[in-house]
Amino acid sequence: MNGDNFTACEQLVSPAYVRQGSQGRRTHELLIRQLIDTGKCPESGWDESTIELFLRELSIMDSNNFLGNCGVGEREGRVASGLVARRHYRLIHGIGRSGDISAVQPKAAGSSLLNKLTNSVVLNIIKLAGVRTVASCFVVPMATGMSLTLCFLTLRHKRPKAKFILWPRIDQKSCFKSMITAGFEPVVIENVLEGDELRTDLLTMEAKIQELGPENILCIHSTTSCFAPRVPDRLEELALMCAKYDIPHIVNNAYGVQSSKCMHLIQQGARVGRIDAFVQSLDKNFMVPVGGAIIAGFNESFIQEISKMYPGRASASPSLDVLITLLSQGTNGYKQLLKERKDTYVYLANELRKLAEVYSEKLLDTPHNPISLAMSLKNLDEQSSKAVTQLGSMLFTRQVSGARVVPLGLMQTVNDFTFKGFMSHTNTYSCAYLNAASAIGMKKQDVDLFVKRLDKCLKTFQKEIQTGSGIENSNQNADLVGELSGSLGDVLHIDPAKNN
Amino acid sequence: MNGDNFTACEQLVSPAYVRQGSQGRRTHELLIRQLIDTGKCPESGWDESTIELFLRELSIMDSNNFLGNCGVGEREGRVASGLVARRHYRLIHGIGRSGDISAVQPKAAGSSLLNKLTNSVVLNIIKLAGVRTVASCFVVPMATGMSLTLCFLTLRHKRPKAKFILWPRIDQKSCFKSMITAGFEPVVIENVLEGDELRTDLLTMEAKIQELGPENILCIHSTTSCFAPRVPDRLEELALMCAKYDIPHIVNNAYGVQSSKCMHLIQQGARVGRIDAFVQSLDKNFMVPVGGAIIAGFNESFIQEISKMYPGRASASPSLDVLITLLSQGTNGYKQLLKERKDTYVYLANELRKLAEVYSEKLLDTPHNPISLAMSLKNLDEQSSKAVTQLGSMLFTRQVSGARVVPLGLMQTVNDFTFKGFMSHTNTYSCAYLNAASAIGMKKQDVDLFVKRLDKCLKTFQKEIQTGSGIENSNQNADLVGELSGSLGDVLHIDPAKNN
Amino acid sequence: MNGDNFTACEQLVSPAYVRQGSQGRRTHELLIRQLIDTGKCPESGWDESTIELFLRELSIMDSNNFLGNCGVGEREGRVASGLVARRHYRLIHGIGRSGDISAVQPKAAGSSLLNKLTNSVVLNIIKLAGVRTVASCFVVPMATGMSLTLCFLTLRHKRPKAKFILWPRIDQKSCFKSMITAGFEPVVIENVLEGDELRTDLLTMEAKIQELGPENILCIHSTTSCFAPRVPDRLEELALMCAKYDIPHIVNNAYGVQSSKCMHLIQQGARVGRIDAFVQSLDKNFMVPVGGAIIAGFNESFIQEISKMYPGRASASPSLDVLITLLSQGTNGYKQLLKERKDTYVYLANELRKLAEVYSEKLLDTPHNPISLAMSLKNLDEQSSKAVTQLGSMLFTRQVSGARVVPLGLMQTVNDFTFKGFMSHTNTYSCAYLNAASAIGMKKQDVDLFVKRLDKCLKTFQKEIQTGSGIENSNQNADLVGELSGSLGDVLHIDPAKNN
Amino acid sequence: MNGDNFTACEQLVSPAYVRQGSQGRRTHELLIRQLIDTGKCPESGWDESTIELFLRELSIMDSNNFLGNCGVGEREGRVASGLVARRHYRLIHGIGRSGDISAVQPKAAGSSLLNKLTNSVVLNIIKLAGVRTVASCFVVPMATGMSLTLCFLTLRHKRPKAKFILWPRIDQKSCFKSMITAGFEPVVIENVLEGDELRTDLLTMEAKIQELGPENILCIHSTTSCFAPRVPDRLEELALMCAKYDIPHIVNNAYGVQSSKCMHLIQQGARVGRIDAFVQSLDKNFMVPVGGAIIAGFNESFIQEISKMYPGRASASPSLDVLITLLSQGTNGYKQLLKERKDTYVYLANELRKLAEVYSEKLLDTPHNPISLAMSLKNLDEQSSKAVTQLGSMLFTRQVSGARVVPLGLMQTVNDFTFKGFMSHTNTYSCAYLNAASAIGMKKQDVDLFVKRLDKCLKTFQKEIQTGSGIENSNQNADLVGELSGSLGDVLHIDPAKNN
Repeated sequence: MNGDNFTACEQLVSPAYVRQGSQGRRTHELLIRQLIDTGKCPESGWDESTIELFLRELSIMDSNNFLGNCGVGEREGRVASGLVARRHYRLIHGIGRSGDISAVQPKAAGSSLLNKLTNSVVLNIIKLAGVRTVASCFVVPMATGMSLTLCFLTLRHKRPKAKFILWPRIDQKSCFKSMITAGFEPVVIENVLEGDELRTDLLTMEAKIQELGPENILCIHSTTSCFAPRVPDRLEELALMCAKYDIPHIVNNAYGVQSSKCMHLIQQGARVGRIDAFVQSLDKNFMVPVGGAIIAGFNESFIQEISKMYPGRASASPSLDVLITLLSQGTNGYKQLLKERKDTYVYLANELRKLAEVYSEKLLDTPHNPISLAMSLKNLDEQSSKAVTQLGSMLFTRQVSGARVVPLGLMQTVNDFTFKGFMSHTNTYSCAYLNAASAIGMKKQDVDLFVKRLDKCLKTFQKEIQTGSGIENSNQNADLVGELSGSLGDVLHIDPAKNN
Repeated sequence: MNGDNFTACEQLVSPAYVRQGSQGRRTHELLIRQLIDTGKCPESGWDESTIELFLRELSIMDSNNFLGNCGVGEREGRVASGLVARRHYRLIHGIGRSGDISAVQPKAAGSSLLNKLTNSVVLNIIKLAGVRTVASCFVVPMATGMSLTLCFLTLRHKRPKAKFILWPRIDQKSCFKSMITAGFEPVVIENVLEGDELRTDLLTMEAKIQELGPENILCIHSTTSCFAPRVPDRLEELALMCAKYDIPHIVNNAYGVQSSKCMHLIQQGARVGRIDAFVQSLDKNFMVPVGGAIIAGFNESFIQEISKMYPGRASASPSLDVLITLLSQGTNGYKQLLKERKDTYVYLANELRKLAEVYSEKLLDTPHNPISLAMSLKNLDEQSSKAVTQLGSMLFTRQVSGARVVPLGLMQTVNDFTFKGFMSHTNTYSCAYLNAASAIGMKKQDVDLFVKRLDKCLKTFQKEIQTGSGIENSNQNADLVGELSGSLGDVLHIDPAKNN
Repeated sequence: MNGDNFTACEQLVSPAYVRQGSQGRRTHELLIRQLIDTGKCPESGWDESTIELFLRELSIMDSNNFLGNCGVGEREGRVASGLVARRHYRLIHGIGRSGDISAVQPKAAGSSLLNKLTNSVVLNIIKLAGVRTVASCFVVPMATGMSLTLCFLTLRHKRPKAKFILWPRIDQKSCFKSMITAGFEPVVIENVLEGDELRTDLLTMEAKIQELGPENILCIHSTTSCFAPRVPDRLEELALMCAKYDIPHIVNNAYGVQSSKCMHLIQQGARVGRIDAFVQSLDKNFMVPVGGAIIAGFNESFIQEISKMYPGRASASPSLDVLITLLSQGTNGYKQLLKERKDTYVYLANELRKLAEVYSEKLLDTPHNPISLAMSLKNLDEQSSKAVTQLGSMLFTRQVSGARVVPLGLMQTVNDFTFKGFMSHTNTYSCAYLNAASAIGMKKQDVDLFVKRLDKCLKTFQKEIQTGSGIENSNQNADLVGELSGSLGDVLHIDPAKNN
Repeated sequence: MNGDNFTACEQLVSPAYVRQGSQGRRTHELLIRQLIDTGKCPESGWDESTIELFLRELSIMDSNNFLGNCGVGEREGRVASGLVARRHYRLIHGIGRSGDISAVQPKAAGSSLLNKLTNSVVLNIIKLAGVRTVASCFVVPMATGMSLTLCFLTLRHKRPKAKFILWPRIDQKSCFKSMITAGFEPVVIENVLEGDELRTDLLTMEAKIQELGPENILCIHSTTSCFAPRVPDRLEELALMCAKYDIPHIVNNAYGVQSSKCMHLIQQGARVGRIDAFVQSLDKNFMVPVGGAIIAGFNESFIQEISKMYPGRASASPSLDVLITLLSQGTNGYKQLLKERKDTYVYLANELRKLAEVYSEKLLDTPHNPISLAMSLKNLDEQSSKAVTQLGSMLFTRQVSGARVVPLGLMQTVNDFTFKGFMSHTNTYSCAYLNAASAIGMKKQDVDLFVKRLDKCLKTFQKEIQTGSGIENSNQNADLVGELSGSLGDVLHIDPAKNN
């Protein structure tokens, strides 16, 4: 409704009321204006009607929504299904151009604005979450692993001789595969045990650099967010090492945006040493569907090089999701979520500690890990070699998701590389344990339900010892093999042979 | 509504009516059952209510929609925004696992089914579109270019020594970049002119293989769908060559599914020689939003290797889009679209031929290109060096999208490689020309509008000659520099210097 | 997006592209402008994106969507459920004010515009459908029957002495009840048989007027659309009689908008005599959900009086539905539907005639009924007294809806008035029969399915005669009592006793 | 997804995961089952996915959604617009049959269930809100006023001689019109002043009954919820009087469900005396769009008689809205809203009292009115005769909606009846005043904004006195005439002449 249309309305409805209506429109427009002008996430979240208005405004700027458009090319934003058109707000052209995923599309001014604004708002949030000196970022519709691959592929052009990536061990498949897929040879640096924590082995790292020769090393690939008892890598020291040996440094910050500690590590690393890019998942940090990541860095031109590496247009879907989400929360809403996560972490730690004591177990002491916690399962493991995995499947069937039991001594081969003690980030950890995390969006109620169900499962095992009866019947156990992998997170093929 | 619930309803509403209602439900369920059992696209399209029922059924099988679920992990399908949840039908977990984009997720039985069924239905359609012996395929939420990159990265592990990719020239940035991004050196094989057509130079290709040595060649990277006057590569001969020299063969079939000719070429190539994988865009062939591709091949285990190369989970959005679209069309609907496309091609060719004659131009004779047509712009080019690009921008501002003017002698550098005569697929073509294509979903009405507007633009130029007046004022021309790239498709930085 | 916002966008995206986008918006706005200016249904239907844009624009003009609004009244358009808000496009205030359902609401400029424009567009369509001199109309969120009641209640204030309504018999409950509910005594004028047709008995009507005295008669309540073999009333003659005796005339035009014949009758009646108001259903004429009607007339002030009779605000839902529907069709689309309906009528008549002959029945000759057809069921009725109703239930369970079997001699009491030969519009019709209608939106495919299923049912009866076996088992028959009323349309309590 | 389909899924996805998914479905089904079995509002609200699942299940039970249906009638639930179909969840057949708005439709088992369940859930909520012995109720898609009319029309058939309705005065147009529309003569019983409150004049009422004769009186029409300083009628005493004289009693409980006091009055009235029906608005009590009401009573057969008075089917839209809303809140959610409303009432009273004191005004002492409050405007009224209405328009333009200024001495004629002192419920109240209400869904923030804006407006007037300058310029005043009625609620034509 433009000014002329409002005036026309006054023939039908009293001018005073139309004026009120037009005034009502203006307040929505002012919010949109502020977003375009500042490129920043609004402080207060927008309501749905403003968000939808905004998206529809963007949408009708794209040529596929021009009433008089005629398309004679092979890619004109035609959509066969109304269901599909609607769920994308008729934004069909995706983002980027064949040369650059951040580029503007002539046919799609609206989608291009969406792309620009999303990257700008996300940059604003990364600063606010703690990496204050970040220079540039972009959303890419690929998972964290594939995004890391894209970073490595970009570095290849700068370091044509390099073959190795130095990687402090973390037992998660996709970050390992990200290096393999890019065509490099991961050099695994085993972690060292400090108290209960597994931490970066800086001495071995430096020795390895010297052994292989810095020019043969593509980059150091470090990690912040991870499962306890592993803790975030010593980013500051690694960044200094990278600076010293002139080696690029890529940080896997998968779900670290939600933790001020992880973000602080990145900020510090970049301040004192070298970090080229850090990559984070959209879904894990912003509560959107799986499928997008943010590639960010401190040097705008390097981030642009990465964005120009993506050949072809890309799905706008993850950008749309994160933009809607951030606009609806505002910075106040997002900060509130961060605060709640921290509080829930403390609550989860206390509840788990209490429960552990009841069963003569302990909550592992991992103060450097701000998100994940681990509770020992010594007694269960001693009771029977299968009891630990059985606990995992029991929790799964009881609709506890995300809890992760880690038995001792698993062997796992990923792309020809064999990990001993897989899942525990070290060849031999001192005990079996169970992980639980306090992630963004988790509620106190989730903790309560989890602790209650876990308590019930552990009680069942206790009774079993006393009565000697088997846990759950054998028919069920046949199924549990399948369910097992569920409770084990991302591990598909587990070799049950103990490693010793 | 299960059986018990229907029975309960009989307390409120006459059993005979409830039975009719329950019978009504069953017919929807039977359709769903047939899909699950056969994995094939239904013949008749489903109506929206069946599709939505089906998606909601999938959705409530995912753990994030369990009413009693408690999540204590870092990725539990939590969604902050209702707008986002709804547009994804609450299917939040994406597809695949860290080990394999085609793998099943324990937390998300519904999303896993979606993934399996989409790949199965798409396979069915590829067969139906002409590649009858295709063995396996999967949908990947990346554009064609990045999907080609993934294929090349997979081949690297099988041919560690190979450095080169042999590539019959096609002037489109993202397929060129797909090789660069994967870290290989493209070897450009210039096309040969046969009549008006630009075709694969088989002799040079074979000579190049012998010169570089087959073991140093990662693969031949050929193309089907392309802009006239280039025509699809001689796939049969290339496939034979690949078999002879034991070189992998990857086909860029970007928008070729819509053409039985392109599909036939692939089928024939695979029958007589070697094709390892062929990659096609979702949006260009199935009228869905930009952002997905299908990687398909004749050897199931090789396609699986590629799918295992994608590190991490991925967006389900492109899979969801294409599944909705195909279910709503059915094979009958899709076949009908293919037929209409063919008819529109003939219509477009006739209309353009007539128009060309009026302006003493010709429709280039490119019978091997089943999708794209080209009309010469000799007179315009002779009139003024800028007239050709000016025509492009005039069409753009008149809301003709997808038409593409190709001036003579452009130079373009992409990742250090300089293309002479860029956009025309050859160093020097005989004349400037304009492209238009008959792509799936295009209507007769689009052709009529296009021809009418083109006629009007050409008339303006004709008058200009007679009166000597300039076309459109200079202020506008300043803007046209920007608009130009729009009308030129994917070309970002054009060097206007003639090449001679 | 206003002008300022577009300008702001130029910082992010090339001005030329933003200009195209803004131009794209303008075409949508022009359509909206035209609607507001002319108040007419557009010729060509709007696409969904324009309709949604328009509705959202209206919506943000309502005070409940003002970002800065604070409400301290008891009715502020607050909505508890997001699902509900969304399905109404956040238009919550309904239509009208306590004084007048057509009045403007200060709090809701958008909803008020919706109301005004709907009434205006609907008026335009009524003219186009044949009642060219209609002066005024409004949509009311009540069914046809209740809307007729409102007309009668309005007339009461003009004719305080009148007690009777003269009503040519039509066997449909709600139009009978509309008079009872309004507190008047219906005087039923039996129809006369002319050939197969049942037509208005003008002589008896005039005699009744003279007998009761015109001043004691509230109005004549005539009917256009009806089930064959009854045909539309002789409106012209009735209208002349009303003029002659100064008696108001209300026409029940329930589903007559879809028939040019019915509309022509009204137009003629008003031209030569007196028609005060005619009432039509929204759902039956415009393919929207049940629940609304249009009250129209030739004297603006009388129609206003009726609209002022409705005490309180009303649901905007039926107005919204019909406006969306007409905007999406345009007058061209609606005319096309009318044309298709006529063609389907001819097709249905031919197919039924052919089938009737096969079973030695006849298609009743009812040329004055432009919508409904009747096929005799003499043989079935002779075969067994229950066979006719059994046919009805068989069709119901075979998912034929809307077919209506009419046995001979039903007795039905509605509000103390007993109808002999109920459903057949006369005390004794010559034979049992079956009705089928060609209504707007019906497809040739419906006719084919119907005739095929009817054929099958009749064949079953034929076999039964030959073999002497019963049709469908007795258990089922118990249920059929319930199903029966389904196939009988609106008749709830049927007295199976024959009347003779 | 039925059992067979789940089994079929196990070919594609591990049986253990499918079983989890099927288990997930069952929990949603159990909720639905409980609703059908008990007919009660669930304690805890359902989430959107369960509600949508439920509505879709209902929807596919209706014949218009049968895949094999063929319709040959005039009302087959055909929908022309997809937008319309979707917003009604494809529930097209409305509710009721021509004989009864509560009846079951053979063609629409799903819509029939919706209707039955809505009425049942709403009955449950009315009990819970305080009228524990209510026997029956139904939702009708008409506003409160028209629903009252329907009650009066039903009573007419029981009391054919009665002409009068006795009505303790309340200055709101639609309840007055509801009697006029039904064709009765309202006998206005003026209120008596007790302290600041205006209360039912029982003596005059009884005198009037005796004067007119009980058999000539259709009913007493009393009111609960109303604007202060009027307070709810003395229902108990009126109910006793109705019992004594055998006169029906209809209660206008427009927005009284939200107040336990109003509901208690009805419960008490029915316990000790006679109440035949009480009518309440859907939108004002349940935060749904305008357009529906609930007619409830203590005698099931009388309520059924009313429901059978509605001639024809009706819109299901208001039923759908209220069912969605109550399911999403659950009884817990609704009770919480009731509690918050009470708290807000206290807060609003306190804030208004404080503000009143600042301006030497007072909060009128109206303890019997549990919803509405009034603050005197004596000084403003003394300042200028127009200042009071000016305040109203100032609040309107400052986006305060629902505040209502009441000047002294307005005259208003509604359907030939002239009210002196209109809006104040009495011929001459002691002072001008301003109303504000604490209605369900109102937030503390609304109160704060309102008080702040009111303070600002009053301050402006104060300054004016001191400086002698006019408030807002005269051009604006011209518009304010229109805006005025906005701030005055439902009053359309105000005679500014003072009455004395």
